[in-house]
Amino acid sequence: MDFMISLDNRSPVPLHRQLYEEIRKSILTGRLTAGASLPSTRTLALSLGVSRSTVTQSYDQLISEGYLQTYVGSGTKVSEHLPDDLLQVAPPKTHKLRAEARKTPSPKLSRYGESLADAAPFEPTEPRMPIHFKYGIPALDEFPMDIWRRLLLRHCRADRSRLLDYAETAQGEPGLRAAIVGYLGRSRATRCTADQVIIVNGSQQAIDLVTKVLVDRGDRVALENPGYLGARRSFLAQGARLEPVPVDEQGIIVERLPARSSSQAKLIYVTPSHQFPTGAVLCLPRRLELIAWAADAGAMIVEDDYDSEFRYSSRPIPALQGLDENENVIYAGTFSKILFPSLRVGYLVVPPPLVRIFVRARWLSDRQTPTLEQRVLADFINEGYLERHLRRMRTLYDRRRQTLSRSLKQHFGDRVTILGENAGMHLMARLETGRTDEEVLRRAREAGVGIISARIYYLTDARAGEFVFGYANVSERKIQEGVRRLAKALKKTCLNPENE
Amino acid sequence: MDFMISLDNRSPVPLHRQLYEEIRKSILTGRLTAGASLPSTRTLALSLGVSRSTVTQSYDQLISEGYLQTYVGSGTKVSEHLPDDLLQVAPPKTHKLRAEARKTPSPKLSRYGESLADAAPFEPTEPRMPIHFKYGIPALDEFPMDIWRRLLLRHCRADRSRLLDYAETAQGEPGLRAAIVGYLGRSRATRCTADQVIIVNGSQQAIDLVTKVLVDRGDRVALENPGYLGARRSFLAQGARLEPVPVDEQGIIVERLPARSSSQAKLIYVTPSHQFPTGAVLCLPRRLELIAWAADAGAMIVEDDYDSEFRYSSRPIPALQGLDENENVIYAGTFSKILFPSLRVGYLVVPPPLVRIFVRARWLSDRQTPTLEQRVLADFINEGYLERHLRRMRTLYDRRRQTLSRSLKQHFGDRVTILGENAGMHLMARLETGRTDEEVLRRAREAGVGIISARIYYLTDARAGEFVFGYANVSERKIQEGVRRLAKALKKTCLNPENE
Repeated sequence: MDFMISLDNRSPVPLHRQLYEEIRKSILTGRLTAGASLPSTRTLALSLGVSRSTVTQSYDQLISEGYLQTYVGSGTKVSEHLPDDLLQVAPPKTHKLRAEARKTPSPKLSRYGESLADAAPFEPTEPRMPIHFKYGIPALDEFPMDIWRRLLLRHCRADRSRLLDYAETAQGEPGLRAAIVGYLGRSRATRCTADQVIIVNGSQQAIDLVTKVLVDRGDRVALENPGYLGARRSFLAQGARLEPVPVDEQGIIVERLPARSSSQAKLIYVTPSHQFPTGAVLCLPRRLELIAWAADAGAMIVEDDYDSEFRYSSRPIPALQGLDENENVIYAGTFSKILFPSLRVGYLVVPPPLVRIFVRARWLSDRQTPTLEQRVLADFINEGYLERHLRRMRTLYDRRRQTLSRSLKQHFGDRVTILGENAGMHLMARLETGRTDEEVLRRAREAGVGIISARIYYLTDARAGEFVFGYANVSERKIQEGVRRLAKALKKTCLNPENE
Repeated sequence: MDFMISLDNRSPVPLHRQLYEEIRKSILTGRLTAGASLPSTRTLALSLGVSRSTVTQSYDQLISEGYLQTYVGSGTKVSEHLPDDLLQVAPPKTHKLRAEARKTPSPKLSRYGESLADAAPFEPTEPRMPIHFKYGIPALDEFPMDIWRRLLLRHCRADRSRLLDYAETAQGEPGLRAAIVGYLGRSRATRCTADQVIIVNGSQQAIDLVTKVLVDRGDRVALENPGYLGARRSFLAQGARLEPVPVDEQGIIVERLPARSSSQAKLIYVTPSHQFPTGAVLCLPRRLELIAWAADAGAMIVEDDYDSEFRYSSRPIPALQGLDENENVIYAGTFSKILFPSLRVGYLVVPPPLVRIFVRARWLSDRQTPTLEQRVLADFINEGYLERHLRRMRTLYDRRRQTLSRSLKQHFGDRVTILGENAGMHLMARLETGRTDEEVLRRAREAGVGIISARIYYLTDARAGEFVFGYANVSERKIQEGVRRLAKALKKTCLNPENE
């Protein structure tokens, strides 16, 4: 077995549990790959100096959870299909029957395809609730649809053949790229020209392109733990070995990265403006440390500047892209969160030497983003509507955020710790309820309230009792009502109902 | 060297040229990979029983074209950056300087990224000409923009939150998927349910998803030669080994596929409705042979049903998808060519066991196609506008096609052979001009006429004198004038100008 296991005899955590965690972590980070053989319980017990029953106990747990499989005559191996590493979430209903009827599709999948065969969703699958604290959704009712519609009409009437034909370049409309450069320079202190901007269909495509162009099977990729699943799954599907780095109230803990000299990480993916899901804003000293680390380690930084637009209680901190002197940052931004998610327009800012390759990879992915949307968006930015909309939303979201924070404190008192509320469109609450996360979610659902557990976002060492509350698309009245219902639903049941 | 070379002493082609072709083919099909060592000229000459100068001559040619490199002390190797396998086409101007200034970008590219580092474009880069026979472009002036605009407005006024929020599934709007199933059943005799349809951003994304989900580095992929570059490059970038299969007037020559029993091809990519670029329509007997071959060989068929909508002189032939009984066909279609290219909406129809994996790969690629476009398109189909538009275009394109065909015969007489004119939006003309393809293109350009050489689409064994003429977006007057100018420009220059 090519992975190191260290067990701590003095830890309060039982040895079999420590061993379970170590092996599970090795599987989830890709150090142990699908089909890899594990040593026999006897061999491993001997080499670790623990009893054989300790090893058996942890193997049994991993087998019952689907991480390992036993084969008669060939011992214990890592499963080909990894289990749900999440809460009890089922695959989408329409496909469930089919998937069960024929577990192994006849054509042999690629390793990329195989890596998607598990049931774990890429985002929480909470059903739509009357009061739904879904994260990442802007105030859809407040979007100035009348202006958008007017701009759509304007462009439908313009020169038809340029509008309808293929674009001249896969890089995106020059007008939109120039508008983005202006907007980013004003708001994020980036330093780039329109030649470095590539229009993509939202930040997930940005991640997909980074994965394709930079990551080979077996490459090491460092990322925040907890962190964004869409990135983690993309890197894993490509066969990367993940190096999770813990996060605290100031963002990713740079000193917990592998030593610069010995790091083999090829890239590090971060969400510095509003760490997902903890909401931490990466402080300036750590930004500078991270840039220095990446330069020394020879790693690219992928800066997913998610939620950078909304800051409530302090000055914005410049983007890593603008701080870096080494052409070592790939910057990704999206309009999904500030305009509307179904628009599908985002952008990459890449160092000049990489532009050509990224544009070619973009072409091979799906050629271009629709032209009409790009032109409408360019006008929307150039005519000042974007920044006006952002100012309005900042005020609105700030009120909603304060209402949510106040309601949580009012109903949960010292049983709630609020994290990441200084920026973005969601906050994270640590709730002490004396109940399991599953039970909290179930009770919330029964009360008509949708929240999500942060456990899904941990690659390893998940904490219990952490919940994400999106507030941007929830009215103040619903926020108050939602928190009230949640608090009531989570009260310890009294034997005597009169006490309620 | 792990590739077989057979030289034919009785062939009129000189031995050094045969050897050159064999090695080049091995490189282009991925049998010889970047960095692979070649035997010394002495060793190879001995093993082939030819003179050393024969080997040296072919090596020199390959080195001068950039396929091979020599390293002092380590002999001859396949280049890391493969050359332009096309006509003399330069990389897009804006990036050229940068790419030259810094040949090796500092971050190490993935093998996918490396494979894109050459200068060969994915489509011809002919500049826009006054009379431009660009292929794949519908009659943009004829698109009913007023109807499209009205449907856009209708949906902009509808339930805003469902329109603007993320879709509930990455698979695409249920209404659009149902509309596509109806349309395909009526027009293409496919057999599928809406559960098997996945909305994508055009057929290039369909190809990208197929590549990701089914192709691993080293897998063999069979494809038409000549064939569509967007597919070839996608498979190559993923590290596939290509097996080019020749094409004649009836489409791909199924009997030239590797023997069923011994074939290792994992999938075969075909364009049966209007083979790109030859325009051949795959005849029914070959369709059935192909399906039988794939079933026996255990290969998936990827049916890119490009240009299926326009047939002029015979009944449509049912899609492979509907003929196949083995769930062995992945069907791809697009609205780029029948509505407009900048729309970016296409679809995949995949066998039920593969649906879930493809939808997950779609999510990781870029989550979803914009919702507004999907809804407008569903109405456009359901309210009969699509089929009405197609009927009008079929009549219009038929007229343009006949005009082109007639003009070519009138001006070139028996020096032109027209291929693939019974379907689609372009035809292929074999011209006997006594000039090189480069000279034909240059003279056409000078006369203000844009045509493209088919050489770019050949993986091996390119034919000279083949040109693609798109006619769907060119008026009859311009077609006549374009062919007249072309014929004049290609006349052998007379010493005495009075003879002209």
